[in-house]
Amino acid sequence: MNHQADPSSDNAFLSTFHHVATIGATDNNGVDRQALTPEDKQTRDWMRAWADAHGFEVRVDAIGNMFACLQLVPDGAEITNDDTPAEAAVPDSTAPKDSAAPYVLIGSHLDSQPLGGRFDGAYGVIAALFAALRVKEELAESGQQPTFNLAVVNWFNEEGGRFAPSIMGSSVYAGLFDLDEMLAVTDLEGTSVADALTAIGYAGTDTPPEAITYAEIHIEQGRILERETTDIGVVESSWYTQKLDIDVLGEQSHTGATAMADRHDALVAAAKVVLAVAEVVDEFDDEALVSSVGQHVVEPNSPIVVPRRVHMVADLRSSDPAIVQAARDSLRTQIAEIARAHDITINVEDFDIRDKRHFPPEGVELAEKAAANEGLSIRRLETMAGHDSVAMNNRVPAVMMFVPSVDGVSHCEREFTTDEDMVRGVRVLTSVAGELVRGQLGEVRDGEVWVGRSVAEARSSVTV
Amino acid sequence: MNHQADPSSDNAFLSTFHHVATIGATDNNGVDRQALTPEDKQTRDWMRAWADAHGFEVRVDAIGNMFACLQLVPDGAEITNDDTPAEAAVPDSTAPKDSAAPYVLIGSHLDSQPLGGRFDGAYGVIAALFAALRVKEELAESGQQPTFNLAVVNWFNEEGGRFAPSIMGSSVYAGLFDLDEMLAVTDLEGTSVADALTAIGYAGTDTPPEAITYAEIHIEQGRILERETTDIGVVESSWYTQKLDIDVLGEQSHTGATAMADRHDALVAAAKVVLAVAEVVDEFDDEALVSSVGQHVVEPNSPIVVPRRVHMVADLRSSDPAIVQAARDSLRTQIAEIARAHDITINVEDFDIRDKRHFPPEGVELAEKAAANEGLSIRRLETMAGHDSVAMNNRVPAVMMFVPSVDGVSHCEREFTTDEDMVRGVRVLTSVAGELVRGQLGEVRDGEVWVGRSVAEARSSVTV
Repeated sequence: MNHQADPSSDNAFLSTFHHVATIGATDNNGVDRQALTPEDKQTRDWMRAWADAHGFEVRVDAIGNMFACLQLVPDGAEITNDDTPAEAAVPDSTAPKDSAAPYVLIGSHLDSQPLGGRFDGAYGVIAALFAALRVKEELAESGQQPTFNLAVVNWFNEEGGRFAPSIMGSSVYAGLFDLDEMLAVTDLEGTSVADALTAIGYAGTDTPPEAITYAEIHIEQGRILERETTDIGVVESSWYTQKLDIDVLGEQSHTGATAMADRHDALVAAAKVVLAVAEVVDEFDDEALVSSVGQHVVEPNSPIVVPRRVHMVADLRSSDPAIVQAARDSLRTQIAEIARAHDITINVEDFDIRDKRHFPPEGVELAEKAAANEGLSIRRLETMAGHDSVAMNNRVPAVMMFVPSVDGVSHCEREFTTDEDMVRGVRVLTSVAGELVRGQLGEVRDGEVWVGRSVAEARSSVTV
Repeated sequence: MNHQADPSSDNAFLSTFHHVATIGATDNNGVDRQALTPEDKQTRDWMRAWADAHGFEVRVDAIGNMFACLQLVPDGAEITNDDTPAEAAVPDSTAPKDSAAPYVLIGSHLDSQPLGGRFDGAYGVIAALFAALRVKEELAESGQQPTFNLAVVNWFNEEGGRFAPSIMGSSVYAGLFDLDEMLAVTDLEGTSVADALTAIGYAGTDTPPEAITYAEIHIEQGRILERETTDIGVVESSWYTQKLDIDVLGEQSHTGATAMADRHDALVAAAKVVLAVAEVVDEFDDEALVSSVGQHVVEPNSPIVVPRRVHMVADLRSSDPAIVQAARDSLRTQIAEIARAHDITINVEDFDIRDKRHFPPEGVELAEKAAANEGLSIRRLETMAGHDSVAMNNRVPAVMMFVPSVDGVSHCEREFTTDEDMVRGVRVLTSVAGELVRGQLGEVRDGEVWVGRSVAEARSSVTV
């Protein structure tokens, strides 16, 4: 076996990672692999072939999530909830004797933003593929019988650049979004998710593996770890986020022949809205709120026509839900004033509201122990960005870990994480995945998947 | 002959006009017939069939201009420069005896803005088709031999919504734009003019008729005629116009994870530029300057990505070139300041500069006499909008006339002109075209086309 094929080799991981970064590569070291484009298909085909070659069973569900499954527990084996070898386990009378064991899921997403970075998402999937093989190898060497099976997942459309909302595949899996509604979502060209999945051959019909726990590793996309020279971050909670759909409806007219006083220029009003969204952060403490407009489409977009319509999406995020609420209220008031001043209509709708979410403390402690065992430094932090783990944490206990991002930049071509940091992350993810398949965080009672007390408490505080 | 086919019938004109308005019709009484789209092809096909059926010879040149030609002067006939019947004309020894006579061109354009009005351009072409047949009929009834032939033109891409710059076909004909450069222009999808012409079958190979004079009638797109209840406007001069190509280059980043202080948001800087362009008019007298941004494209335009680039086009126009210059200088200073404040790059380029142009006074007087003969009121005015006549006036003496626009609005679906006003315009255009084919404004000396003294003076003041 050469090092390329040996999952325990860091070089094998690194050469695989850097190979995948060539798919959809851009001129400045980024990738452009938006969901369900030819480049996304190419990355998916790579994952399928690689997983097949390494003994995984690949399943694709109806929303296009890909699962590379390793059955570590024979069908009918007793499901135990401790990490003693199976032959020594004391049978748990409440556990079913003959059902297939549920799966620990680990992974992230292979899709990217337009002109995005090569680490965001892809690092987590490739790290998970190697971690899964390492866990399998360790179990084989130790002769242990794990409690749960293990699967690596590539979630559909985490980025949401082409099809909104983002974090789509994991949210459907977690029951937060309706499958049929998401299949009907269209991109700016009018192509639906359903048609785009069919077009690239990933409209799956497989039943996805039943998850009991979830773990993900990702680049930080911030600069806390880099600034503090910490190896690993473990996420305690996610920021409260919401979007505003803002539709500015003016009147189309001639840029030359229409008197300035007769115009209802949608773009001028929209420019004031863009500035209001950017400047609302000044009403709060420094960096307590981030706020911006990412999508902004002008109609009819002709050089000699005064715009009739601007449709935009604003994104507001804070650790404190009350701050987002206050910012949103302030913006609605300011936008109403702009509409009045320009005698035009501006419709504002709240959407994609994502409550602040807490990850289970047992998962945080598990990651901390894993890092300590590997001799790595670790700290707790919050995530400002949304992640598949945030959606999955609504369904099962989830562990979310970060590796450092150089300069804290992401969603751009110069996004960067060192090979050393990536390799450290794979080691910690391997350790966490090993604990999870041995029964940490998840348990099975009376044939049902249950999570621990504190996990249940954490979840009860979450409104979906 | 039923009234539909009788060009002297106002009902025939009106029913033809309202029929053409059904091609590419929009939900709110507008049309969407951008250059070289299937709807533009359908309108062109209609014109070709109608012209064929009414005895015109249709020619299409290399930039896709369509000419419906009526040969009123037999080949080899003496070209005279007065309006006496041919049999009574005193032969002019300096005129060639056997060359084909040049053409009076009348017309406008059939293409529209996206969701544009049904009058802008189309009115002028259809009015010209009916005026041409009426002139031919009058000549036949009177037995007069005209001096020049007559052709109706549908100029390619006056609007410039899809392919910039606007006024493309007439500017190529007039020698202001290079044919090959214009054929290479691409739309936002990357399709070239050459390919789009071929795709709809209008990449012509015909030699266009040689113009000696030009006349056009158009809706005012302003509210002066309506306010003063005047039937017809005649254009003395066109406003000075220029565009600014403004490219705002920031850095793409994550809308959630990137600290506000670390962002280089191209859209926030662009919003300030949009407002500067709108507000620069306040530095001058009321309505002395119009200024706006019509085209504005955000990249990557994803809801959760801070924009890296905004590319926009600003349009500045004034009767006084010095005002446009001063506004442009003020904007360049303000934009440099915005770029500095946001630590990003903003490139600004002048383009599509169109000097103030004067129409020949003889043409203005000709239109005034024609209106008076028809018992209609007329006034002189300037045009703020660009027109094919402005380009043509660089090559031959041109007459530009307006009919009233309700509320002065155009480039929008609610653009409106009454049937009565349209019918009056056809009568005046017929009268002007009749005078032009009888030798007004144009003359031929030593086999060369010449224009009158005052025309030459007007032209010498124009910088192309």
